[in-house]
Amino acid sequence: MACGSFILDVVDLATFMELTEPSMTRPLIITMGDPAGVGPELALRGAWWAAKAGVPIAIAGSFGVLQRVASKLSLALPSRILPEAFAAYQFLPNIPVIVDFEELNAASVQPGIVNVETGRASLGYVCWSIDQAVAGNAAAIVTGPIHKEAWVVAGSPFPGHTELLAQRTHAPRHCMMLAAPSIRCALVTVHIGIAEVPAAISVEGILETIELAGDAVAKILQRPPAITVCGLNPHAGEGGLFGNQEEELMIRPAIKLAKQRGWQVTGPLPADTAFIPAWRAKTDVYVCMYHDQGLIPLKAIAFDEAVNITLGLPIIRTSVDHGTALDIAWQGVADGGSMFAAIDLASKLSANRQE
Amino acid sequence: MACGSFILDVVDLATFMELTEPSMTRPLIITMGDPAGVGPELALRGAWWAAKAGVPIAIAGSFGVLQRVASKLSLALPSRILPEAFAAYQFLPNIPVIVDFEELNAASVQPGIVNVETGRASLGYVCWSIDQAVAGNAAAIVTGPIHKEAWVVAGSPFPGHTELLAQRTHAPRHCMMLAAPSIRCALVTVHIGIAEVPAAISVEGILETIELAGDAVAKILQRPPAITVCGLNPHAGEGGLFGNQEEELMIRPAIKLAKQRGWQVTGPLPADTAFIPAWRAKTDVYVCMYHDQGLIPLKAIAFDEAVNITLGLPIIRTSVDHGTALDIAWQGVADGGSMFAAIDLASKLSANRQE
Repeated sequence: MACGSFILDVVDLATFMELTEPSMTRPLIITMGDPAGVGPELALRGAWWAAKAGVPIAIAGSFGVLQRVASKLSLALPSRILPEAFAAYQFLPNIPVIVDFEELNAASVQPGIVNVETGRASLGYVCWSIDQAVAGNAAAIVTGPIHKEAWVVAGSPFPGHTELLAQRTHAPRHCMMLAAPSIRCALVTVHIGIAEVPAAISVEGILETIELAGDAVAKILQRPPAITVCGLNPHAGEGGLFGNQEEELMIRPAIKLAKQRGWQVTGPLPADTAFIPAWRAKTDVYVCMYHDQGLIPLKAIAFDEAVNITLGLPIIRTSVDHGTALDIAWQGVADGGSMFAAIDLASKLSANRQE
Repeated sequence: MACGSFILDVVDLATFMELTEPSMTRPLIITMGDPAGVGPELALRGAWWAAKAGVPIAIAGSFGVLQRVASKLSLALPSRILPEAFAAYQFLPNIPVIVDFEELNAASVQPGIVNVETGRASLGYVCWSIDQAVAGNAAAIVTGPIHKEAWVVAGSPFPGHTELLAQRTHAPRHCMMLAAPSIRCALVTVHIGIAEVPAAISVEGILETIELAGDAVAKILQRPPAITVCGLNPHAGEGGLFGNQEEELMIRPAIKLAKQRGWQVTGPLPADTAFIPAWRAKTDVYVCMYHDQGLIPLKAIAFDEAVNITLGLPIIRTSVDHGTALDIAWQGVADGGSMFAAIDLASKLSANRQE
């Protein structure tokens, strides 16, 4: 096996003996994210955190970049395998590996500077990881932070992970949910300008998000969730005074249909009162009309605890809830909380799925 | 004086003796808000809270409604004067009074049910109070919660207090700021639908809001404030990917001009990261592009501590940061925190102004 010699380079003999034992464990794949951001550091720290928790991990990324970051930050470096050897590799819970995509010139990467190369590389890690999960070679994907502009200059038609995941897994319905222990928000629209939001919401889209979020949170909580749906306009339109009746024409009908299907839904609530502490205590998941309506309160209340989950996919995918944080890339100061939470949730969801 | 007999009805003789002493104290006016909401209860509790703090108070409202609420909730009832006697009345810090607008049939008001009558009444309290403040008969106005739909059916062309205040005081520039000890947000646009926001923001409007907020917070903190300006679109447009370049064409130029004028401004920041704890610690005031962008985090973090201040007016006006809460009207369970904070801030600002 071509990758055997690499492993022997970096793991000791006792470990090697273990590696030769048969194992059917499928790993979680952590994608490294943009090489110039905090992704490489978080992937390494996440992998070792997972190893302690007994979760088998493969980092999809650049071995050269991870080597530089590990060296700079005095982090241990997992062993290396190649993408083509992935499916046949015998994973062990306490031994993370790096799946090395060699195209990127690791020496040329500068922390904090994204470009077409870093964009193309980070896009490649995600595409490959999705395919592995779809093929059943991985239990779940945990994605590190990518830089959307870098994806665009690299020729990606996708504004973010969520849209790429939906298309590549042929998911007919999908939505993005951010989840922390104290607050969960599912989004009806995601990466579009504010001007485009009113035209992008529909009865069908809202109902779909209610159902996807309801299904997912029911699995997490093991009971029917209490769902709060936010209005679009200030004061949820104040009875039609503000906006173009989006609450009356789209949100209320969607809520009515959801109730008819048995969901426990309240709304449309004015978004500014929906997130006050008393209402949060009554809500298991919020359905939000646009990106910042959900992400402002979520990050204000539960920053570094939140995990991004794509609902409706045939595979399990979680993600950190933050960006590349280019200003602190490779410095050893990034908060690992969201990465650890994303690994933990992906691990739990995939264990649930196997049951 | 016509109102003398009323006073003797409800205050004891010792108090009356004090009342006859000359006083130049100008009161704060609390407007009662919509009679069917929590406003009457909060006005009464606010007035007595202020009396303890030595702040002279006049409630502009319906004596009959306040009498019903005071009786139901076992609250003390201040004495009654009439609007035409207001300017000549001798105010004392520890004796609140009610300025009684008799048009409303108090017996017909049902808690929780707003209508054209309650809308017209609450509109009248505010108009009269503004005129008193402009005329110099009141030190400041603290407005109770009104119901916007009730204002509309009552024929008001104003969607809220802020717009009415701006027009009636002939303020050339104005903006709404919500302030709590831990977070302050000034709004570039307020009561318009989400669809209208992108067209409603401009370099001039953003710069104006930066300057009005900067001026106000400099007075509150007695030092130059750190100002954070939020982007409009998700990820502050992600370098032009989302939205119609509003960040590049309007927000960045406004920030540049503000910096040239000496303001300490950062932005445009993605709104979802702007409100994380680490950034809040670095920000004295946020400039937000739309209503919920500022009010979601403010109410999530500092509900019942926040005060609404209209900046740029020739008079001082603060307000509770919540609505009429019709579901708990006249029940004695409304949280008085925001009303007390609004009185406190109005009192401090008017004391500052007199200096």
